[in-house]
Amino acid sequence: MATINDHYLKLKAGYLFPEIARRVNAFAEATPDAKIIRLGIGDVTEPLPEACRTAMIKAVEDMGDRATFQGYGPEQGFAWLREKIAAHDFQARGCEVDASEIFISDGSKCDCGNILDIFGSNNAIAVTDPVYPVYVDTNVMAGHTGDANDKGEYGGLVYLPISADNNFTAQIPTQKVDLIYLCFPNNPTGATATKAHLQAWVNYAKANDSIIFFDAAYEAFITDPTLPHSIYEIEGARDCAIEFRSFSKNAGFTGTRCALTVVPKTLKGKAADGLEVEIWKLWNRRQSTKFNGVSYIVQRGAEAVYSTEGQQQVKGLVNFYMENAQIIREQLIAAGIKVYGGVNAPYVWVQTPNGLSSWDFFDKLLQTCNVVGTPGSGFGAAGEGYFRISAFNSRDNVNEAMKRITEKFMT
Amino acid sequence: MATINDHYLKLKAGYLFPEIARRVNAFAEATPDAKIIRLGIGDVTEPLPEACRTAMIKAVEDMGDRATFQGYGPEQGFAWLREKIAAHDFQARGCEVDASEIFISDGSKCDCGNILDIFGSNNAIAVTDPVYPVYVDTNVMAGHTGDANDKGEYGGLVYLPISADNNFTAQIPTQKVDLIYLCFPNNPTGATATKAHLQAWVNYAKANDSIIFFDAAYEAFITDPTLPHSIYEIEGARDCAIEFRSFSKNAGFTGTRCALTVVPKTLKGKAADGLEVEIWKLWNRRQSTKFNGVSYIVQRGAEAVYSTEGQQQVKGLVNFYMENAQIIREQLIAAGIKVYGGVNAPYVWVQTPNGLSSWDFFDKLLQTCNVVGTPGSGFGAAGEGYFRISAFNSRDNVNEAMKRITEKFMT
Repeated sequence: MATINDHYLKLKAGYLFPEIARRVNAFAEATPDAKIIRLGIGDVTEPLPEACRTAMIKAVEDMGDRATFQGYGPEQGFAWLREKIAAHDFQARGCEVDASEIFISDGSKCDCGNILDIFGSNNAIAVTDPVYPVYVDTNVMAGHTGDANDKGEYGGLVYLPISADNNFTAQIPTQKVDLIYLCFPNNPTGATATKAHLQAWVNYAKANDSIIFFDAAYEAFITDPTLPHSIYEIEGARDCAIEFRSFSKNAGFTGTRCALTVVPKTLKGKAADGLEVEIWKLWNRRQSTKFNGVSYIVQRGAEAVYSTEGQQQVKGLVNFYMENAQIIREQLIAAGIKVYGGVNAPYVWVQTPNGLSSWDFFDKLLQTCNVVGTPGSGFGAAGEGYFRISAFNSRDNVNEAMKRITEKFMT
Repeated sequence: MATINDHYLKLKAGYLFPEIARRVNAFAEATPDAKIIRLGIGDVTEPLPEACRTAMIKAVEDMGDRATFQGYGPEQGFAWLREKIAAHDFQARGCEVDASEIFISDGSKCDCGNILDIFGSNNAIAVTDPVYPVYVDTNVMAGHTGDANDKGEYGGLVYLPISADNNFTAQIPTQKVDLIYLCFPNNPTGATATKAHLQAWVNYAKANDSIIFFDAAYEAFITDPTLPHSIYEIEGARDCAIEFRSFSKNAGFTGTRCALTVVPKTLKGKAADGLEVEIWKLWNRRQSTKFNGVSYIVQRGAEAVYSTEGQQQVKGLVNFYMENAQIIREQLIAAGIKVYGGVNAPYVWVQTPNGLSSWDFFDKLLQTCNVVGTPGSGFGAAGEGYFRISAFNSRDNVNEAMKRITEKFMT
């Protein structure tokens, strides 16, 4: 009989979000009158920018005329999109990133997982704790870990705890690791990294010949002008970092699907015979062979993000969600709840009141306020006692959810 | 230093199509006046069906209103699309395929490669020769092969030769293999499989506990009503087959991107401890963790394929390309060239005249007729002496290309 990839059997039964959905559905069935407000999953709610919609309608029309019809596009994405990204998101911030180093994809989640295809199976891998679960689960699936312990920690991974004590930024490890996942602004804690902190990571990576996987999906939410948006703002990062970006959260593309990954041509890995190999060539080969590019229509929508109107409209969307985050922060603080994040990120990281566990607070909030958030322990053992509230929702829902929570916790 | 996946270094330098592009570009530069006609890559040329465009414009407009806006969709695809596919493409042909067994994706090329994620590394794997290169290359990348020999055959793979002698349908192997790639109507040869032939494969797979990867990307081009469109038309296939389908070639979605994979819930694989595991659960977990679904806009376009107008328009497109195939066949036969395929498939498989090698014929056709095709040897060692001509082009280009070829080869 055909054998399966046994590593899948190490995965814990429920990915975090399906378990949340299960509890919410059970509550909704038992309490059909409850008006549940979902501030759990980080999914956008507001309409796509008009510039993107106009561009996509034009692109659909292009598909109706033989002269402008588009068949297979380049697996790496169209040059007109890659060039705008390079100029606007990187070169304008002083980063040396060429359009040919940008690979357009249908999602950062896909890229974060697929990137492991091109690396060896013997690398020491570090993740923060708590962390975006996809980094961990894709390593489990690829066979890079042992089994999980009772706390959900997988053998073989190096966990770097982040907490209020270190401003939710991991200490630079003393041991040598080969691949490191960093996410700033951080999901789930909403923490940010200064240039000095990222420089310390780049210095570590260069000293140890490590590679940083830098997830910048939330860079648009940075409000502090001193904070870096890209790892390539840091001296030396081109030699040690891959960056993941997305149109999901800035332009609201969670259901439209477009993202990008930057692989500098200066980045090297080591073959078994000791020779150095360009990582760019491996990723280019991976994408050419296992991917067929993003829909022409969607890429035209992403391109419109860089028009004058697109930039204004994206800014409007980001500001809207950041006002939500501010309301959440202020209301929770007023209710006597300790919060982090939500200033340069769309996530507010809540310390659960009265020492409640993350899931107990989840259940309490669901049952007494009919508000859904995400238990911090779902992001890792060190997330226990924390809770993530997302700023992605309508203003009315955010106001109503905060009213319910403050009434409950202030009385 | 971070190590790389060394298996990538076994891949031959040039994927077939980049090498073709290189030679065509060199010729075009040297001969700027030549009017080159490309019948090489299997890319569609005609406008998207109006029904699909209308649905996609409506979907873009949905994205502009908070009430109809779509954020993250299900990773497996929207139920409204999966149900239409199940009813129309499978149940209407007597196949027992449930909507929950259908996974929507952004391409069959992706799915054919990604499916290996969920299988073990110790399976014996069979491919035909010649074959769609992605099946082979993704196995090389996953470490399922040894090095390639001079003919381009990778150690560890079981190659099943197909030629005129066996009507381009492989003999059922005498040895035991665990995973088998079959593609009907076939790319590159244009051959088809009868129900009896597929039944023999299913019987083999059931007797040997093997799994068939059935690529049905070209099923819409079947004109012979006795030929099966799906492997699930064959008794027992639910226990031993995964099917890949695409909207690329029937509805012209090569640049729009939508495909699907069917994984029956009855399909099992074996874990290291000997226990049987549902393949569906593994694929569902893989897609949930490493994929985020196809664009809502594109899925609405695919759904429109199943409307009355969509069905008529897709039929019109398919007929158009099949008329091209008929013209190619007839003209080449009239020129005294031996051809196969092109009756139930959009590819005509040409025996190179005068014993020319595939690449020599490629160069000759390019230089004397300014027509581009695909050398058969690019699909595998047993493709040597053959040449693929694609029916995907405008009528004018097909007529002009055939005029040039027949004039050249008849004189």
